[in-house]
Amino acid sequence: MGSDVYIIGVGMIKFGKFLERGIKDMTKEVLDGVLRDCSLTRDDIEAAWFSNTTWGLYSFQHSIRGQVALTAGGLQGIPVTNVENACASASTALHGAWSAIKAELYDCTLAVGVEKQHNEDRVKVMQSFSAATDVEEMAQRMSRIRMEEQKAREKGTKAPRQDEQGGHSAFMDFYAAGARSHMKAYGSTQRQLAVIAAKNHNNSTMNPLAQYTFPQTVEQVLNDYVVSYPLTRAMCAPIGDGAAAAIVCSEDFLKKHPNSRAVKILASVLEGGSRTGSDNIVERAAKKAFDKASLGHNDIDVMEVHDATAFGEVSAMESLGFCPRGEGGVIAEKGDTALDGKIPVNPSGGLISRGHPIGASGLAQIYELVTQLRGEAGQRQVKRHHIAMTHNAGGTVGAGEAAMTIHILEKTG
Amino acid sequence: MGSDVYIIGVGMIKFGKFLERGIKDMTKEVLDGVLRDCSLTRDDIEAAWFSNTTWGLYSFQHSIRGQVALTAGGLQGIPVTNVENACASASTALHGAWSAIKAELYDCTLAVGVEKQHNEDRVKVMQSFSAATDVEEMAQRMSRIRMEEQKAREKGTKAPRQDEQGGHSAFMDFYAAGARSHMKAYGSTQRQLAVIAAKNHNNSTMNPLAQYTFPQTVEQVLNDYVVSYPLTRAMCAPIGDGAAAAIVCSEDFLKKHPNSRAVKILASVLEGGSRTGSDNIVERAAKKAFDKASLGHNDIDVMEVHDATAFGEVSAMESLGFCPRGEGGVIAEKGDTALDGKIPVNPSGGLISRGHPIGASGLAQIYELVTQLRGEAGQRQVKRHHIAMTHNAGGTVGAGEAAMTIHILEKTG
Repeated sequence: MGSDVYIIGVGMIKFGKFLERGIKDMTKEVLDGVLRDCSLTRDDIEAAWFSNTTWGLYSFQHSIRGQVALTAGGLQGIPVTNVENACASASTALHGAWSAIKAELYDCTLAVGVEKQHNEDRVKVMQSFSAATDVEEMAQRMSRIRMEEQKAREKGTKAPRQDEQGGHSAFMDFYAAGARSHMKAYGSTQRQLAVIAAKNHNNSTMNPLAQYTFPQTVEQVLNDYVVSYPLTRAMCAPIGDGAAAAIVCSEDFLKKHPNSRAVKILASVLEGGSRTGSDNIVERAAKKAFDKASLGHNDIDVMEVHDATAFGEVSAMESLGFCPRGEGGVIAEKGDTALDGKIPVNPSGGLISRGHPIGASGLAQIYELVTQLRGEAGQRQVKRHHIAMTHNAGGTVGAGEAAMTIHILEKTG
Repeated sequence: MGSDVYIIGVGMIKFGKFLERGIKDMTKEVLDGVLRDCSLTRDDIEAAWFSNTTWGLYSFQHSIRGQVALTAGGLQGIPVTNVENACASASTALHGAWSAIKAELYDCTLAVGVEKQHNEDRVKVMQSFSAATDVEEMAQRMSRIRMEEQKAREKGTKAPRQDEQGGHSAFMDFYAAGARSHMKAYGSTQRQLAVIAAKNHNNSTMNPLAQYTFPQTVEQVLNDYVVSYPLTRAMCAPIGDGAAAAIVCSEDFLKKHPNSRAVKILASVLEGGSRTGSDNIVERAAKKAFDKASLGHNDIDVMEVHDATAFGEVSAMESLGFCPRGEGGVIAEKGDTALDGKIPVNPSGGLISRGHPIGASGLAQIYELVTQLRGEAGQRQVKRHHIAMTHNAGGTVGAGEAAMTIHILEKTG
């Protein structure tokens, strides 16, 4: 195995809905930020991995998105690999930047994710979600949903509510169906989901870069409108824009550029799909990550998991093995996953409230955990911050998520 | 440095224009082919890199193209990285599959490129080319070209001809401008370009998987219609569909699955852009590749270079250092680059005649050279076939190509 790999710089721009911003200027801002964070210059970066999922769809910029965006950001003349893996695109970029150092191709690489998903054209936003599935199959699924709605209207019963944040109802339906089976199988409750959403909303009131910074009580979350039962709007990640980045380096590079705020990557795992329905991609990825890091669950101090909805956090905590099946909501209700709990989860506010600009989200998780490990998280700083873990899921095809990444990080300073 | 890396299997489907085919069925066919080539099964593949540039643009399938296509092809449950680098996308996928083995993450990986660029909607085809540039800048460039045409019409002079193969005139204009400067600076001729095009067309008459399999004389090439002077249609790569793949493995894996047809990857280099106008990305990439392989120009027996136009081959041979500046056409006229010449170039027929389905093209080069190194190229087999080199360029932004890959391969059996 090659060199140990370190994250020496992280950057993130304020997440939100920015009709007036474009990929190029967001790229420049996050590039300036990540370099400032570690006092390096553009000349120090030897190669880059660029993540984005909507630029092609919205503006026909496919093929060399990273080169176009980075050139506009003043970074040129280096190898760029453009990667996509739906909601796990940005962490896939980090995995690429990490593995190239493992392979001893470079000493200092950049992973950057930039996303502009907010758009006044609702059809495009819907297409951006469909693109994270098999679009042929999704078209059929959407037809079935529309037919059910039509039937409900004909019978005079209430049609399922559509998400007014931009139409990503198909994915929300998918999570809602999971939540309903979970409630049936384990007696978990809608209130548990609301506790998770309220926790994440409240965490992000202390995160100045979050998309949402207003508090939400459990009651407020429960009383928000239903996107797809049992999920209310406040339990679902919003649509948004943003950028996040990390600079990764080898042991040699770190020796030449000593940095007490460096964070070591103990494991970087990318997993995919499922060969069978009974195979759980998250369990598989977690096992691999823990094995590579030679660590167990008790070693993890703080986490960012893929709460595309509050049920995503329930499901992640169980599949990652942090609690028995059925108890993902229970541990939240007990306060274990709160900022001052046993194992704080989503201190940034998570996808639900920090925001989820698809191609940037996985690196926003990294930004948060590096900030936590450094002890620089201000009001939302967790107490124990030696080892941290991310869980980032992307798309769906066949029997499970299409892509799954897990990173385990360790404080060095 | 990690393990040596070998290509043990290659696959390619017949290139052409297939309105009736889709990405999914082409993926399945090339997957069956590459596995059959090395007597492995889908279960042997631990991770995949998937290359495509138009599926999102034509059919809204972004984000997880590889997972969707490979699942349809019967391959699931493995990590997939979706990569794009314009015309160098497929070789970027190979570079990813190679580097992950170098990093000792896997022992057996797949690189696959599948493209469906042919489309009855000319606007989409045009957009697919624009996407390989900065689309904002390209829109401005196209406006200027249209204005020049308008002026020419007003003056009663002849407007530049547009490419009837699908409208990739902007890129052809770019190559044509390069060719005209070259003619002015070095006294190179349109006939030299025709010699290259005729050579490549004739080579592909012996390649049953090529898009074009009809011969072209130098006179025929010169008399074909002018796309953008001095380039005639027969000097330009066509639009098309196709798929190509390679299975790559570690030394350990090769020991467990002995294979006398394995080919060793001596160098896999990805380069990007240019920081300045005087910096030549091809020279830079070539130097790196020769250094890594510890070889010189005289060691290379056979090449596939990026002849998006015949001038591309001229320019590549000079920048790669196989002849002095200005003599890229001269060596072709002398017959040096012919199938029985000193250094056969584009025995497959090259992009010009084997075809150039963008996201598959770089792996088609690999398919050809592995076939040549194995001595399995039939009628088009070159005599010396110990070491081979590919050159694959992608997109343009700023002062040079956006992406450039070079692979040097060595026969083992």
